[in-house]
Amino acid sequence: MSKTAKDQGNESSFMDKQITRRDVLKYTGIGGMGVLIGSSGLGCVLAMTDKWQKRSAKSANKNEIVPFHGKHQAGVVTPVQNNIYFVSMDVTASSKNELKQLFKDWTEAISHMTSGNPVGETSSNHYIPPKDTGEAMGLSPSNLTVTIGVGPSLFVKDGKDRFRLKNKQPKELVDLPKFPFDALEEEWSGGDVCIQACADDLQVAFHSVRNLVRIARGKATIRWAQTGFQRTKQADPKQGTPRNLFGFKDGTGNPDTTSKQEMNKHIWVQNGDGPNWLVNGTYLIVRRVQMHIEVWDRSTLKDQEDTFGRYRDSGAPLGKKKEFDSVDLDLKDENGNHVIPASAHVRLAKGNGKEIILRRSFSYTNGMDIKTGSFDAGLLFISFQRKPSKQFIPIQERLAKMDKLNEYTVHRGSAIFACLPGTTNGGYIGETLF
Amino acid sequence: MSKTAKDQGNESSFMDKQITRRDVLKYTGIGGMGVLIGSSGLGCVLAMTDKWQKRSAKSANKNEIVPFHGKHQAGVVTPVQNNIYFVSMDVTASSKNELKQLFKDWTEAISHMTSGNPVGETSSNHYIPPKDTGEAMGLSPSNLTVTIGVGPSLFVKDGKDRFRLKNKQPKELVDLPKFPFDALEEEWSGGDVCIQACADDLQVAFHSVRNLVRIARGKATIRWAQTGFQRTKQADPKQGTPRNLFGFKDGTGNPDTTSKQEMNKHIWVQNGDGPNWLVNGTYLIVRRVQMHIEVWDRSTLKDQEDTFGRYRDSGAPLGKKKEFDSVDLDLKDENGNHVIPASAHVRLAKGNGKEIILRRSFSYTNGMDIKTGSFDAGLLFISFQRKPSKQFIPIQERLAKMDKLNEYTVHRGSAIFACLPGTTNGGYIGETLF
Repeated sequence: MSKTAKDQGNESSFMDKQITRRDVLKYTGIGGMGVLIGSSGLGCVLAMTDKWQKRSAKSANKNEIVPFHGKHQAGVVTPVQNNIYFVSMDVTASSKNELKQLFKDWTEAISHMTSGNPVGETSSNHYIPPKDTGEAMGLSPSNLTVTIGVGPSLFVKDGKDRFRLKNKQPKELVDLPKFPFDALEEEWSGGDVCIQACADDLQVAFHSVRNLVRIARGKATIRWAQTGFQRTKQADPKQGTPRNLFGFKDGTGNPDTTSKQEMNKHIWVQNGDGPNWLVNGTYLIVRRVQMHIEVWDRSTLKDQEDTFGRYRDSGAPLGKKKEFDSVDLDLKDENGNHVIPASAHVRLAKGNGKEIILRRSFSYTNGMDIKTGSFDAGLLFISFQRKPSKQFIPIQERLAKMDKLNEYTVHRGSAIFACLPGTTNGGYIGETLF
Repeated sequence: MSKTAKDQGNESSFMDKQITRRDVLKYTGIGGMGVLIGSSGLGCVLAMTDKWQKRSAKSANKNEIVPFHGKHQAGVVTPVQNNIYFVSMDVTASSKNELKQLFKDWTEAISHMTSGNPVGETSSNHYIPPKDTGEAMGLSPSNLTVTIGVGPSLFVKDGKDRFRLKNKQPKELVDLPKFPFDALEEEWSGGDVCIQACADDLQVAFHSVRNLVRIARGKATIRWAQTGFQRTKQADPKQGTPRNLFGFKDGTGNPDTTSKQEMNKHIWVQNGDGPNWLVNGTYLIVRRVQMHIEVWDRSTLKDQEDTFGRYRDSGAPLGKKKEFDSVDLDLKDENGNHVIPASAHVRLAKGNGKEIILRRSFSYTNGMDIKTGSFDAGLLFISFQRKPSKQFIPIQERLAKMDKLNEYTVHRGSAIFACLPGTTNGGYIGETLF
């Protein structure tokens, strides 16, 4: 098998024809195996195919599988996994049919991968590229969820109704307004579609995104991509609220994801909200928020706690004792001053308490920020909501204006996507839209 | 507590004096607490300090602690953790004494953090910056190891004997030669010192690096930094060899890290090897190898397996059945051709079998490569060896010339560091050098 490139080329041509499992059985029938084993490696093919299947079955620990099919997509009310791989893509497909096929292919691949199986069938043919890229082989499904969304630019881009979808664009699915102090960078903003892959194992999340990007070849290209993490939950038996890179708990004020009523009220798009195709879907807003952790680290604990309006250790609102104690914005100290300062993050985020969003954020760290020599680290803020205009936008308008946290953070990226409703076996994500 | 910046400034000056735990007890003695609770938050300080200590004690699961003190530094023969945060730094300290103090401070901080404790004592004073940045609070020690190394440029830079260490520079501690096809980038190469933090939880690894960088303020700055991951071992009960992003097992040919004899022979610097200060240390070589995964994914399985010289599924050498079956470079097929091709990675890496290195690599993914629109992903290759000139360098010279893998990879970063020997309680990392 020591061959020059030319020899290999010849062999490839010769062997290019599809070799099915039946062929292998045929060619390697009693006495036949010896002939082929050296020159093509087919001897090992059978062994490999069997092993792979056994391994997949074994690894498919039901406790680590989040069901893919359902009324809603997974990855929204799913308990937060350890890692995220978020990708925003630009669609290059030239027709609605191509786009539709992409979503069908994605759906099939996602249903396999979230069950802990390789993408598509494992071929016994060594002379084609493997369908699955292999790095998740033997790994647990790791609670993988893959959530697909569509951005405003999929409907209309540069004034053009690209896929005859213009009349289906929801009023809520428009670029976010520019908020004060936004420092958005094109390279971290926008996108026609998004893939949010979350798993307890980054290798499993990466594997899913990589295979979906591969399937999209010729139809969509990566626009931007960001990994994120939070503390490994296995290490924290209490399953407490994760801490962000400022050392504070993040997500305490979230609504109860186990309450259908709350989720229908605040998160899932309902009949009558807008286009019917999005009913049981939701809007995903993602903001890449860089944190100036070196500056933060030089501020006093009191300043930090006044900034969030919570105690760092317990996560309790200032003036209270426990993390989940209600936030009392009216509480005053003996001098008549608010215990929770006017510019505290929790005060501004809460507002009148009626704008409820579901936050599902991750920390990120991309090594060094070459521009500053500091850590390029921060929060990949992600929230889900039923009506951005009544939920995220008014909250962020308040925060952007006077949140004390603005001294330590800068919003570098932003995008909005409509997360499609879920699908059942036989259907596909996007079936209500296309 | 709703104050202007000016008010806060005044209050800070007033409160700047150190408040000890005893002060708190004094000020908050019976009847006193009510006075302070609103205006300074001191009421919660006591509760916090106690909780933090309890939590740290609880979280310090002995099973997830890798001992820091010892003859060698941890993080070399330690079983590979899930995540790495690798940082290369440029030293800006102006004297050897400053440098020495930095290594002492680092040693103390590392000994705390690897035990699952915060950096230094938790202060009850809210009016100073917290000593610990807090994001690892309540988390498991996660098998954190922190390994410190010194690069050639710490000894001599631009011809200058910066810290009167020139005569201590080992002959082996010199920049690696330029290998064919190297495409090294300054921003991913070199460094005066390195911090290799590995943990099963990226948040714990990040926390350690961030606090060490903070401690180094004014004495060293980040030069480059890279996170890495491998499959989460909890998910893989067999604790098999991790797979790289090409889907192949990586690290199969490693020497036995549990054998003192093998480690002394191949990894740890011995008496007589070079300067005495490095005895029981080792040389770390790091290469940031970008993988063109999109190209790889379009190649056939046969081509991929010929490239590595191993089967993808089992990890067995071509012609063999099991991962740990010995590599037989002489094996020929019925046509007289080598079963393991001449350009196969495993053949070139193995050579005559006498150059043994300990690989401890991680995959990385930094989102999109803006230059190409592809994934910026690959391998943060790390190896340890006793004598680079007799181990890594001859191997890499062979690989760089004709490894078939070169079609799919490009070396973008490179550095070499001498990892200092370990220390005992009361000593510090670097004590033999300074």
